[in-house]
Amino acid sequence: MSAPVLILVNKPAVGIDVPAGTQPEFERRDPGEPQLSVLDLGTTRGDGVFETVMVSEGRAPALAAHLDRFRASALLLDLPEPDREVWGRAVEAAIAAAVAEAEAAAEAAAEPAVLAVKLVLTRGIEGSGRPTGWVLAQPARDFTAMRREGVRVVTLDRGYRHDVASTSPWLLQGAKTLSYAINTAAIREALRRGADEVVFTSSDGFVLEAPTASVLLREGGRFSTPSAEVGILPGTTQRRAFEFLRSRGHDADALRLRASDLQRADAVWLVSAVRQAVPVTELDGRALEVDLALTDDLNAYLSARQAS
Amino acid sequence: MSAPVLILVNKPAVGIDVPAGTQPEFERRDPGEPQLSVLDLGTTRGDGVFETVMVSEGRAPALAAHLDRFRASALLLDLPEPDREVWGRAVEAAIAAAVAEAEAAAEAAAEPAVLAVKLVLTRGIEGSGRPTGWVLAQPARDFTAMRREGVRVVTLDRGYRHDVASTSPWLLQGAKTLSYAINTAAIREALRRGADEVVFTSSDGFVLEAPTASVLLREGGRFSTPSAEVGILPGTTQRRAFEFLRSRGHDADALRLRASDLQRADAVWLVSAVRQAVPVTELDGRALEVDLALTDDLNAYLSARQAS
Repeated sequence: MSAPVLILVNKPAVGIDVPAGTQPEFERRDPGEPQLSVLDLGTTRGDGVFETVMVSEGRAPALAAHLDRFRASALLLDLPEPDREVWGRAVEAAIAAAVAEAEAAAEAAAEPAVLAVKLVLTRGIEGSGRPTGWVLAQPARDFTAMRREGVRVVTLDRGYRHDVASTSPWLLQGAKTLSYAINTAAIREALRRGADEVVFTSSDGFVLEAPTASVLLREGGRFSTPSAEVGILPGTTQRRAFEFLRSRGHDADALRLRASDLQRADAVWLVSAVRQAVPVTELDGRALEVDLALTDDLNAYLSARQAS
Repeated sequence: MSAPVLILVNKPAVGIDVPAGTQPEFERRDPGEPQLSVLDLGTTRGDGVFETVMVSEGRAPALAAHLDRFRASALLLDLPEPDREVWGRAVEAAIAAAVAEAEAAAEAAAEPAVLAVKLVLTRGIEGSGRPTGWVLAQPARDFTAMRREGVRVVTLDRGYRHDVASTSPWLLQGAKTLSYAINTAAIREALRRGADEVVFTSSDGFVLEAPTASVLLREGGRFSTPSAEVGILPGTTQRRAFEFLRSRGHDADALRLRASDLQRADAVWLVSAVRQAVPVTELDGRALEVDLALTDDLNAYLSARQAS
């Protein structure tokens, strides 16, 4: 497996100046060396936002949607607006460098590289007024087996009502922040319960999302996903999955889904950029149908090169 | 103002080996240089814990209580147990170096240095299985004026019920984690509302804590603070404040406090390690009494050298 490619973004936000001639708008760095200050608020407060973009055969089919969400997350945190043009160029540069690395590596001949490209924007070093930004491109873990074998899921209470994004915007629901300790703790709780993954529910009984994925369900031929108004991330991959399902003639809607809807579903998937669509084999101990043919077709669509 | 002192802790947790003769258990580094990897889970997931310890005249009067809570937070996150002896020595080394720096600086003659010493333990670089730890000692901001002039506070919903720490431990309530984006967002909301600070309430109406402080209230000569069973941090400074109040013959109890109790209080303080006790002058727009004499005496007690 080839090494990760790191690009520091010196001009991460609109209004941040890069002194002409002294510093490029972004530059490659060695990810094996330390690059961040212990005073960076991204570390000391989890005060920043991120995106993870899937790259297949050198293309990022959903990049525009990820850049949209990156901006939306930043604005929810009152961070300066990411400079979309600079981030776009930095991502392209990271992809080009990572593809070159992968091609140089021995195993590249075997299959085309799938990359996970992470974009991070933090509030920067405390008191500096300058955000910190970077792009990290690395070979994605191989999720082929997981896409066929599926995951066992438990539902866990996310603690918040479904409407906190509108009543209490300071809770940052709907922003993809670096403060993900709860998301990783929930996965550990799932493992303790003999499962692999989590679907969060609201304290008042609505289906939300997985810690790092959207939830897709099917009941009697109709597909649905929780609508973003329940304080979840608008799923970039879920949106592409709906495009696929509708192109096949299926009904697919974003709805307010109750936990009881989830328990009634005959099939459930977790969908996210890099893992793509993973079928749920067991939900809170109940076995679910797995439609492998549909899952394979959906994943082929998600990894296709065309823009969404 | 003298520069911060940074100590990287190479043996941050019980069971983490430091190869004999090759690496010290901790070592001083330049905080002006990058020290952290972009792959550290402390940054990418806010997956770590911290403490901030107040040092006055070269002594940390509440260090033992902070080390207790540091360990408790780590265990709530399933992090390896901090090596208490190593952290204790690293903190003492950081204090000694910072005091020497302060004495060398010109302004040191004017008044004894108050330091803020931060301890951070993260889950480390993803896949390494090795946590990352550091201690950062720096001159504390001068809060003298804030302790006399007070702060205006708004109450904001923390979104969780008062009992989530027991029903839903994966929400990590009661752990002092690096995932503090909500805490900083709440402060920005307070500023938007023309206030300075926040007291969080639970979704079911109990008083919780401030984003980085405990809450102390007085009603008719009786002092109280929310009990830790509502999913808040056990306050190290609140505990010392209670020692002081009881030594003066006051009643001081940890109770389940309703938001209505807070609205009825005749005096309120925010108490934390470095700012110490700060009186609340206004709560949701209502003016409160400020007992400056008591506040001064309490702060003198909190900064005294003796161990708590």
